[in-house]
Amino acid sequence: MSMSARIDTAMGRAIAAGQGNGQAPRRLAEALGYACTPGGARIRPTILMSVAAACGEDRPALTDAAAAALELIHCASLVHDDLPCFDDAAIRRGKPSVHRAYSEPLAVLAGDSLIILAFQTLARAAAEDPARAVQIIDILGTRTGMPGGICAGQGWESEERIDLTAYHQAKTGALFIAATQMGAAAAGQDAEPWTELGARIGEAFQVADDLRDALETPESMGKPAGQDDRHARPSAVAEYGLTGAVRRLKDILSGAIASIPSCPGEAQLAQMVRAQAERLTPVFASDSARA
Amino acid sequence: MSMSARIDTAMGRAIAAGQGNGQAPRRLAEALGYACTPGGARIRPTILMSVAAACGEDRPALTDAAAAALELIHCASLVHDDLPCFDDAAIRRGKPSVHRAYSEPLAVLAGDSLIILAFQTLARAAAEDPARAVQIIDILGTRTGMPGGICAGQGWESEERIDLTAYHQAKTGALFIAATQMGAAAAGQDAEPWTELGARIGEAFQVADDLRDALETPESMGKPAGQDDRHARPSAVAEYGLTGAVRRLKDILSGAIASIPSCPGEAQLAQMVRAQAERLTPVFASDSARA
Repeated sequence: MSMSARIDTAMGRAIAAGQGNGQAPRRLAEALGYACTPGGARIRPTILMSVAAACGEDRPALTDAAAAALELIHCASLVHDDLPCFDDAAIRRGKPSVHRAYSEPLAVLAGDSLIILAFQTLARAAAEDPARAVQIIDILGTRTGMPGGICAGQGWESEERIDLTAYHQAKTGALFIAATQMGAAAAGQDAEPWTELGARIGEAFQVADDLRDALETPESMGKPAGQDDRHARPSAVAEYGLTGAVRRLKDILSGAIASIPSCPGEAQLAQMVRAQAERLTPVFASDSARA
Repeated sequence: MSMSARIDTAMGRAIAAGQGNGQAPRRLAEALGYACTPGGARIRPTILMSVAAACGEDRPALTDAAAAALELIHCASLVHDDLPCFDDAAIRRGKPSVHRAYSEPLAVLAGDSLIILAFQTLARAAAEDPARAVQIIDILGTRTGMPGGICAGQGWESEERIDLTAYHQAKTGALFIAATQMGAAAAGQDAEPWTELGARIGEAFQVADDLRDALETPESMGKPAGQDDRHARPSAVAEYGLTGAVRRLKDILSGAIASIPSCPGEAQLAQMVRAQAERLTPVFASDSARA
């Protein structure tokens, strides 16, 4: 089965478990599926599975659960980020955001339920190797909650003074670090040496996202553009300018490839990172057109 | 150490871990502590620890983590329930609700962070017995999320037709079932036979809460009264009348005591349930005064 088919299957199974068999409140059950589809690039679980494969994956059911758990958390974060008290986004992935489609209470509950489902998905896949599962749960919690996960990253936006590096590392970097660490842990390897790869990939995506926010249209992004500027949020474009931000993106991606720890599938993993870098190419193109 | 001191210590340790050592966004870190204090009765972790003790507790560190995790989830649910899109409550536990004290974005994030912290607290206490820890994590997820946990209970309020029993069991009963099941699981016992005790205690508390909502003042409750009526929510008082609801409360508590599974500390546990029932006495008194 291809990696993307494995991710889709694992996500579908997890969501179906959360939706129940008709005993759950119908609209909230629907909202869970709505919040997770269409899937988009599923970039975080793809990185997770690629790292697990590179490490010599030996517990595929645990890798599948870890990949689904990470993506569920990512989807939950999008639902809550879109709420009126944050971005107040009307559109996400080219369709109405969850609170617009289902109501604000159901968006809060859908986000909460997806977070819980993530941890439960891992607990339910733990039978073969509970010790590994709790380690993965701990990593996911660390990179999602407080004091250093994506909740902390969002929390920085309510502070008077923001450290841009800490902010980006927590807000966007955290789930990429989770991806590489969880992938290694699912394969029974030490997670720590994989931190830098995740951090660098996360940094690259943040810079790319800042560039997209500054350069693209709502139609091409499937969500509102110009949000950083509108909310006066810190951004690499504001800090380095367009050309500087593009240069920074290239440097970070080279560093990411250089940081890959020695492992059986090292070469293939470097290839995956390069492929992900090419996904960012539209940004380079847009920039060249304007430069 | 007394049970309540154990709960306070476990909660304090978990919250401190979530707050970090000064690297986290300060206001969100503060909001985590604010959302969990003053502690109130800590009734759910008390039930959990009582069941673990009755079952012959042999992993006290895991019991402590389970108790803290359950209370963190309860506190998170209060923070999100108080949000403007749900109850829009200005006051909780006699002080401004989290969104009034800290802002709506920080209340959403505090709730999210407390949910995550709950699962992480269990993962971090798993070293001695990972298999038992993942079982407890699964129980907590089942009783918290979808399709049958407190999120589902809240989700029923967005449906056109509500089954009152399913609604109450999910909204309030779920965390009491989690308390008895997690307590048994922390002590290495089969969780399933403990379901009924939790369900009955939960039902008793829901009826007592409905009675309090109908009878008491905001000052005596430390939160707004008359919410069920104001939001046209289903309630035992609306369904059975005051006298009928009081009769029902007494029946449920007798049934709860009768349902306690055979275990080493059975008599003491029955005593604990009776003590909790006495905490509900003000409700009986208010009712007699009016009858």
